[in-house]
Amino acid sequence: MVNMRSVSVIGIGSTNFGRLEGWSLVDMACEAANEAIADAGVPREKIQAFYLGNFGSGILVGQETIAPKIGYQLGLGTIPATKVEGACASAGIALRHGFLLVATGLADIVLVAGAEKMTSATTAQSTAALAAAAEELEYKAGLTFAGAFGIWSHRHMHEFGTTRKQLALVSIKNKKNGIPNPRAQFRKKMTLDDVLESRMIADPLRLYDCCPISDGAASLVLCTTEMAGEYCDKPVEIMGSGHATACSNIYEAESLVQFRATVEAARQAYDMAGLKPSDIDVVELHDCFTMAEIIDSEDLGFFEKGQGGPAVEEGLTQVRGKIPINPSGGLLSKGHPVGATGCGQAYEVIKQLRGDHENQVSGAEIGLAHNLGATGAVSTVHVFRRR
Amino acid sequence: MVNMRSVSVIGIGSTNFGRLEGWSLVDMACEAANEAIADAGVPREKIQAFYLGNFGSGILVGQETIAPKIGYQLGLGTIPATKVEGACASAGIALRHGFLLVATGLADIVLVAGAEKMTSATTAQSTAALAAAAEELEYKAGLTFAGAFGIWSHRHMHEFGTTRKQLALVSIKNKKNGIPNPRAQFRKKMTLDDVLESRMIADPLRLYDCCPISDGAASLVLCTTEMAGEYCDKPVEIMGSGHATACSNIYEAESLVQFRATVEAARQAYDMAGLKPSDIDVVELHDCFTMAEIIDSEDLGFFEKGQGGPAVEEGLTQVRGKIPINPSGGLLSKGHPVGATGCGQAYEVIKQLRGDHENQVSGAEIGLAHNLGATGAVSTVHVFRRR
Repeated sequence: MVNMRSVSVIGIGSTNFGRLEGWSLVDMACEAANEAIADAGVPREKIQAFYLGNFGSGILVGQETIAPKIGYQLGLGTIPATKVEGACASAGIALRHGFLLVATGLADIVLVAGAEKMTSATTAQSTAALAAAAEELEYKAGLTFAGAFGIWSHRHMHEFGTTRKQLALVSIKNKKNGIPNPRAQFRKKMTLDDVLESRMIADPLRLYDCCPISDGAASLVLCTTEMAGEYCDKPVEIMGSGHATACSNIYEAESLVQFRATVEAARQAYDMAGLKPSDIDVVELHDCFTMAEIIDSEDLGFFEKGQGGPAVEEGLTQVRGKIPINPSGGLLSKGHPVGATGCGQAYEVIKQLRGDHENQVSGAEIGLAHNLGATGAVSTVHVFRRR
Repeated sequence: MVNMRSVSVIGIGSTNFGRLEGWSLVDMACEAANEAIADAGVPREKIQAFYLGNFGSGILVGQETIAPKIGYQLGLGTIPATKVEGACASAGIALRHGFLLVATGLADIVLVAGAEKMTSATTAQSTAALAAAAEELEYKAGLTFAGAFGIWSHRHMHEFGTTRKQLALVSIKNKKNGIPNPRAQFRKKMTLDDVLESRMIADPLRLYDCCPISDGAASLVLCTTEMAGEYCDKPVEIMGSGHATACSNIYEAESLVQFRATVEAARQAYDMAGLKPSDIDVVELHDCFTMAEIIDSEDLGFFEKGQGGPAVEEGLTQVRGKIPINPSGGLLSKGHPVGATGCGQAYEVIKQLRGDHENQVSGAEIGLAHNLGATGAVSTVHVFRRR
């Protein structure tokens, strides 16, 4: 195994997530990146590479070649600027590539970002285009992401007795968590009746079981931990990084209650960090649907398979619970600009570990960010620790 | 600087380039990758990562998340499988990422590929969609890629006296080179009159100054040079790799006769290889238009700026010339499935250095592949040497 250098996050930036009218994809990415660069206090000429996570720019806004364009607009000279794509995990993949470049010594300072512009299409158009893009055959058979997660939900309920109420409690928690978060798209309290009486989307998932369509961007500046102190009072070290893929369709899936890519990415990240699930103080995970949070919380090792539902009901995943999950509001409340989400999750975890989150988990030292693409085609997991 | 391990190419595969009806993007990528894996004789379970270059899958065929899908279809397990995008340089970027992973010790064996499906749209649709995707503002002002390269051509002719005939001679040479290449889309001899009387596309560029719209895929298997002998009788070492970006539009361009990204990527690749332009025996460079070959041949250091035109006229770039350029037929003859081209060029160079190319450059030991994205937004350069 290669000798890896320690890498830290020294700057973070984010747009608000939501319907950002008048903002192009490039505008949003530059806004978040400029904020991250200013937060790091790094001179632009010291940035040696740029990775952008984005999923749907071609499908939704007819744009590509955006990474070089953003790099040029940011004044980053002739550095390599590369878009990476892995569905909704695109920004997690961008973060991982920045991490690897610094860890291996290929660069000392790297900028990463994720960005997505979705609201220029209608919700129906976005939903259809992204589903078709991710899994063509099943889309042709009528499945959108909500449809696929509806099937996964039914299977989990069938195998483990997970209840409709437990799903709703995920939504209620995340909607509550989003209220103090100025970056969140939805900042409104929700009751059990609100969720259970909301419009049916894909049985058993109702409207408030589903994350919204969002615009947004988030960005991080990474550098060697050795140099981090020059720029930042509160560097946060990246302790572990994992990246894995798996079968993304239902007709060949080995399991409908576990995302194999998550399990494998988490194993890699925990191994690299030398940590275990019980060491984690705060988690941002990929709750694109309420059931996704329950499945993810099991796949990441916080609960035994099948125990994710009861754990929510017992309050274990609340901000003051045993393992706080999605104190930012998660995708359900904060929004899900798909290619931005992985960096947005890391942004929220870093704010927690700096101790200045709007929904602070008391004494958080170690955090985890989990990004999932499509219905399990790809996942990244990153473990962070405050210095 | 990090201590890099030597990396070699041990397997290559390619579809033919052209109109591949009935073949999906995933089909083509799998075909090329399976050929490369078989050529390397590597067991699939030893492949530790996969990079795919692709530009327009979202815009042209409404598909994303294709890298995990191809990885799954190839039976590569849960390894990271990532699409990288940098316009027409996407596959060069994929190759570079595979190279870096092995060079830094993060992996021992990596698969890279490039793939593009273009002919499912009409030529007019592809041309418009890709131009809009690469440079939105100038596309809205009426510029396609041919239009932009027309402007660059006029400027080069104005500054250096490059002639219309010299442009035609690039086309005639590359069309001739394509004849023995079974992977080439066009395998037909062309005369000066053919080129000069072909339909005007964007003054001064005529139809046969322009590369065609193509489908295709190409793939390479990389591993440490130390291990290469286990798998391959004729490993080819990657001596240098460069990757740079620059301004991609005309309204802000510093120069209309030089691609700054190429100059910078070439500098990096030559420096890493410890070689200079005069050491190179064979070149595959990005001749999307005849003038592009002339500009590239200068930017890569084979001729002084402004001397690319006369060099063609003197026959210096012929297969038996001083510096053979595009013996495969280049993009003009072989075709340009945009996101596949960078791996396709590397494929042709490797065949040359193995000594088994259909249009063999006698005694070729060192080769160079140059990939350019958009109108200079991004470039990669790789230098190879036979072992």
